[in-house]
Amino acid sequence: MPEFRQNLATKEWVIVSPERGKRPSDFKEEKEEKEPVPPFDEDCPFCPGNEKNTPPEVYRFPRDGNWQVRAVPNKFAALRPNLATTRTSVGSFLAAKGFGIAEVIIESPKHDRHPALMDIEEVSEILRAYRERHEEISKITDINLITIFRNHGMKAGTSLEHPHSQIIATPIVPPHVRYPLEQAVLYFDNFGRCVYCDMIEEERKQKERLIIDTDNFLAFCPYAARTPFETRIYPKRHMTVFSHTTDGEIEELAWVLRNVLLKLHLCLGNPDYNYVIRSAPVGEDNARYLHWYMVIIPKITTRAGFEIGSGIYINSVPPEDSARYLRETKTDG
Amino acid sequence: MPEFRQNLATKEWVIVSPERGKRPSDFKEEKEEKEPVPPFDEDCPFCPGNEKNTPPEVYRFPRDGNWQVRAVPNKFAALRPNLATTRTSVGSFLAAKGFGIAEVIIESPKHDRHPALMDIEEVSEILRAYRERHEEISKITDINLITIFRNHGMKAGTSLEHPHSQIIATPIVPPHVRYPLEQAVLYFDNFGRCVYCDMIEEERKQKERLIIDTDNFLAFCPYAARTPFETRIYPKRHMTVFSHTTDGEIEELAWVLRNVLLKLHLCLGNPDYNYVIRSAPVGEDNARYLHWYMVIIPKITTRAGFEIGSGIYINSVPPEDSARYLRETKTDG
Repeated sequence: MPEFRQNLATKEWVIVSPERGKRPSDFKEEKEEKEPVPPFDEDCPFCPGNEKNTPPEVYRFPRDGNWQVRAVPNKFAALRPNLATTRTSVGSFLAAKGFGIAEVIIESPKHDRHPALMDIEEVSEILRAYRERHEEISKITDINLITIFRNHGMKAGTSLEHPHSQIIATPIVPPHVRYPLEQAVLYFDNFGRCVYCDMIEEERKQKERLIIDTDNFLAFCPYAARTPFETRIYPKRHMTVFSHTTDGEIEELAWVLRNVLLKLHLCLGNPDYNYVIRSAPVGEDNARYLHWYMVIIPKITTRAGFEIGSGIYINSVPPEDSARYLRETKTDG
Repeated sequence: MPEFRQNLATKEWVIVSPERGKRPSDFKEEKEEKEPVPPFDEDCPFCPGNEKNTPPEVYRFPRDGNWQVRAVPNKFAALRPNLATTRTSVGSFLAAKGFGIAEVIIESPKHDRHPALMDIEEVSEILRAYRERHEEISKITDINLITIFRNHGMKAGTSLEHPHSQIIATPIVPPHVRYPLEQAVLYFDNFGRCVYCDMIEEERKQKERLIIDTDNFLAFCPYAARTPFETRIYPKRHMTVFSHTTDGEIEELAWVLRNVLLKLHLCLGNPDYNYVIRSAPVGEDNARYLHWYMVIIPKITTRAGFEIGSGIYINSVPPEDSARYLRETKTDG
């Protein structure tokens, strides 16, 4: 029986309409026989030895010797750091120059490395790079929103094989971010609590969508998941921006994230995916009503006309089933 | 130089960040050599002779003899007509049974027909079917939103080759629809005018993004287009719901739509695409502040992590260029 479900935080609705007996194997695609990715590619701008082919680095770990993680400005940036932020009128339309920050986090010196298969310590180093760049970028005048994301595979929008993620920071806080935030404020004004804290609590109580539950983080397929195997990771303590994560939390998160990615990798056969870390806008770092989180979306379904027109997603796998499949996928050995 | 642009109606921002010299041919993909689609497929549930394989028809033209257009309930509907609409609580989450209407418009008896290559009269008949079904469905108790859409090609989310579009009607008006509507109300309260009427007027004044301008319709790539070659068709007179379109307007719209689809077909090499007709919610049929429109989105780019996270689309082809390419694509002969 199909049903509508509402996201408690955003008030967005989805339709959960299970197709009979759909299993993870139905989402595995016949991947074409491709040549295996080599561990080093001399033409890759992110491979060691080609550092001069990227703009000068803004982060490097370790500082001396061979690097393990680097961050560099995006050579093909959609936004630029040296422009004014003034809004201008074009007739009755509004415009602004493309001011913003676009950086690439090069996650490993190895061309064929994949976070799902990395050691926990390697993932920790990536998260530490995110944290430092988030912190630094938030100090730049007129930057108001920082989005950290990773596109894995062609269908998720990347063409570069070398493992990397990206940060784009904008002066603009768009409606897509502002509307859920307004809902969170209303919830706070009504109930005196952070709606995300309450959602986490409710998911823990209902249990059936949980994947991993550690001291400080909860990974689950949300009640109103938009797509099969959509997975979210929330810090349990109220924390609005990613850069507030402590050293101990970073290591725990690395363990949770690596295991979620590995479960998806094993369960769905190395699916293309996007992940995003969403934090509160700069300046709302201490808001009572917002909570950073990470969402991981395997690219195994297509957003079609109905989703584009209505914003209502039709999810053919109940998140209870997605979570069960992921729980049953064993990662330790 | 990249720039931010705001959609006047929704207040949504996009980044227009042109990649040097990107031309329509850059979006044409090497389509695999496929067997040509046959004009009849005996296994296709939508082909003539197989009418018994669909649920009983709710619309047929002409009423007698061989049909040209049929509408039937979707056999694999995500929503069902015989359920209650009561909201229920699941802990602190909200749910409702999946009540709604899901229909398929079979656009032609010919298995290999494509609207871009149809006669105007055939497209008119499809639009008349939309209009009648929109009208009828809006009379059903508790239906509040009607979305008409077409998915063309695998990447746009369809697996059935036989030409068809769909209607999904829900009791729910989701935030995705409600938020832009609230912006339109604010605009009306401020300026005393429909924001869409003003946007159409402004696009006509600025001219450079226009594709087709007829007595009653305007087709253009909008100022804040989210993707390359995104095209919109608006009725010029203030009209909130598609079903208010007159007979004369239907024929004119058929001409505009067919030519837009043909231009996209020729310019981009039969791209996969989605189109959507968005009308005001049922009951707001006479609102001063809303305007129905049609949006056509060629599926030639990928929505990646940044778009998912921020809702800000990065468009690599300025809509002025998309519109020029489409204007220069000749369709008459």
